[in-house]
Amino acid sequence: MSSTVRSRALACRAAAPAVAKLDAVQKTALLHRMADALRDASAQVLRANAEDLRAAQANGTSGAMLDRLRLDETRMAAIVAAVHAIADLPDPVGQITQTSIRPNGLRIEKVRVPLGVIAMIYEARPNVTADAAALCLKAGNGVILRGGSEARHSNRAIANALQLAMTEFGIDAAALTLLDDAGRENILELVQLVDIVDLVIPRGGEGLIRFVAEHARVPVIKHYKGVCHLYVDAQADLDLALRLLIDGKTTRPGVCNALETLLVHADVAQEFLPRAAAALSERGVELRACEKSRPLMPNALPVSDEDYAAEFLDLKIAVRLVDDLGQAIVHIRRFGSDHTEVIATLDASAAQTFIAGLHSAVVMVNASSRFSDGGELGLGAEIGISTTRLHAYGPMGAESLTIERFVVHGDGQIRHPQTPIVAIATR
Amino acid sequence: MSSTVRSRALACRAAAPAVAKLDAVQKTALLHRMADALRDASAQVLRANAEDLRAAQANGTSGAMLDRLRLDETRMAAIVAAVHAIADLPDPVGQITQTSIRPNGLRIEKVRVPLGVIAMIYEARPNVTADAAALCLKAGNGVILRGGSEARHSNRAIANALQLAMTEFGIDAAALTLLDDAGRENILELVQLVDIVDLVIPRGGEGLIRFVAEHARVPVIKHYKGVCHLYVDAQADLDLALRLLIDGKTTRPGVCNALETLLVHADVAQEFLPRAAAALSERGVELRACEKSRPLMPNALPVSDEDYAAEFLDLKIAVRLVDDLGQAIVHIRRFGSDHTEVIATLDASAAQTFIAGLHSAVVMVNASSRFSDGGELGLGAEIGISTTRLHAYGPMGAESLTIERFVVHGDGQIRHPQTPIVAIATR
Repeated sequence: MSSTVRSRALACRAAAPAVAKLDAVQKTALLHRMADALRDASAQVLRANAEDLRAAQANGTSGAMLDRLRLDETRMAAIVAAVHAIADLPDPVGQITQTSIRPNGLRIEKVRVPLGVIAMIYEARPNVTADAAALCLKAGNGVILRGGSEARHSNRAIANALQLAMTEFGIDAAALTLLDDAGRENILELVQLVDIVDLVIPRGGEGLIRFVAEHARVPVIKHYKGVCHLYVDAQADLDLALRLLIDGKTTRPGVCNALETLLVHADVAQEFLPRAAAALSERGVELRACEKSRPLMPNALPVSDEDYAAEFLDLKIAVRLVDDLGQAIVHIRRFGSDHTEVIATLDASAAQTFIAGLHSAVVMVNASSRFSDGGELGLGAEIGISTTRLHAYGPMGAESLTIERFVVHGDGQIRHPQTPIVAIATR
Repeated sequence: MSSTVRSRALACRAAAPAVAKLDAVQKTALLHRMADALRDASAQVLRANAEDLRAAQANGTSGAMLDRLRLDETRMAAIVAAVHAIADLPDPVGQITQTSIRPNGLRIEKVRVPLGVIAMIYEARPNVTADAAALCLKAGNGVILRGGSEARHSNRAIANALQLAMTEFGIDAAALTLLDDAGRENILELVQLVDIVDLVIPRGGEGLIRFVAEHARVPVIKHYKGVCHLYVDAQADLDLALRLLIDGKTTRPGVCNALETLLVHADVAQEFLPRAAAALSERGVELRACEKSRPLMPNALPVSDEDYAAEFLDLKIAVRLVDDLGQAIVHIRRFGSDHTEVIATLDASAAQTFIAGLHSAVVMVNASSRFSDGGELGLGAEIGISTTRLHAYGPMGAESLTIERFVVHGDGQIRHPQTPIVAIATR
């Protein structure tokens, strides 16, 4: 098994330069063909997904996790649309991001180039297979996908469709390599393939990410849990705040940009918390509230520090009444995961304090946490949401899968034109 | 010892937010004061450096390594000037690098924020102490410096001067923490301080970098060796090429952007190699040349693959006659270290092929490899030259010590305004 991982990774590395050499027009055409191939294979993918769902249900998989795994016509159409959208994005490769002329006449350019080979290790959501493949190829990279066993059939069906289009286009399908799940052994080998793999992106449960982070020799961008907060300020529009709360908590509780904690300023708690409790309870959300907020929220259970730190990924929410904005910031810095935080306020200076006081990857003012997503932020799609403050932070699109290098144009400049050139004395 | 590293790193982390909160004007003022303090302490620093040099010579340290360690009035002035230059650079923190408005009215900004706490592990060159401290603080970070024992006194004297200015400015000096050398044990602990240190930058010999890379749990940006190439094309201006060769090889052979290998196109070898041999030999450079080039270079020794892969850091050069540009590219991809490569050519299409064919961090057209340096490329100074294709690639200035995050401004947008909000059925 081990040697298979290495040899397949080497095949991906060997195939990657051909992707890097495609120009913008060619890559756009390739990705549209891949999207079309995926659309044409929709029925097969849905059949494969049904198989995965049956197995998951037989294993007693929970509601929200099952939701992450499930595909239907609508979600398939969204996956295909995302690949088309990625195809039509501006090509990041070759972009000149900065230019300057030095006093000595040197012209310095910073130019985007592909990273090389990117390994994506993920669980559950089969759309990641298509998104990650399309984004990595758009950025001129080879990609190694290692999905979870629970989505095995779905991932295989999606990859098959994409690879078919690549082969027809004349690109070695090894540039998109899908490793079949074989426990964590193949992850262990994959994340140590220095000189073959340039970056590993783990995306999934905390256990998976810690496992990768602990064993990786290859650079890792971590996509840790999303413990996202909504803070309702003293100056909030409470109707607006309620909409953000319901959208953030209930429209898809199983994803990382769902809200997990509600913080409410004492001045508006009396009015807001009973309304929030009613709206959330009506939608089946279990409330876990602090001492001060419980009297305002019938049905609320007591909350613990573990709840404040938890990524429920389910219809549960932690609630805390805070004295002021400062206490909200302290709470988020202590319990948050640097993913996404939201403030509802009409006070621009409170918004500014909230933004400056937090170093989370995404900070929203009067907008739902559910927009913390590559597609929604204009990246076409995302390969993950980095909670590592390095290389990329927050939703990562194609641009995040490139690196800027220096290209310098001169006409004979040397560093020491005036200095007589002599051998150093010590020799 | 161990608990000291951890507690000192925690003190740095606690001091860092005060640096992050300084505005651009304050940071500029602070850094100018630090530069002045360093100038005022020049005599002490030079005395400390003399002590380090004596010890190094007693240990039999080699010419080029001794050169890296040595400070004199000129180099001290350059170090002070670099801190002033960093002070006057545009502040990267708070820069809005991208803005867009989504169809739903959301305004998306990407905004630079500090990384947090940066640990710099380095050897020999004491100027790194000042450069790294200034760059990290400019970018709003705390910095932990762990220099090599050979520069112990120099580093301590430089850090003392800088910390004095910080204290006078009202900034906790722990934001610039210098760990005294204590073998590799304190490195081992430092690079595993997840949640305290955000980034480790090792800069020094291959042994040090491999040690850090193998043991780090914290993200690492590696500054591996510089095996820099000059390729003299068939269409080169040979006088210009000779100047690039002499500047690149002989003006400071002990640094990573010095040339290590000369590749010459067969069409110009007859004319160029004897001139190159004469000019290099005259300056005390030992030649190690391939079979085809040795007849054109009197005194040249045979070259080996080990020589091609070597970072000599000394007055030695490997020479190879290549059939064409393609062979030069293949050679560099095989033996290079992704640091800096130079082409001498008047043929724009050859230059383009060279740039596209290589993925090194810096590619120069008709300019000396010695410009592969933060100061020379306009970054004010550099904290290192990344040969890791992640986060930063090539010389790293203050901007490379920040990360872009998302700030989103809305007026109540929610993700699912049309969808009736219902609890998911599976609960």
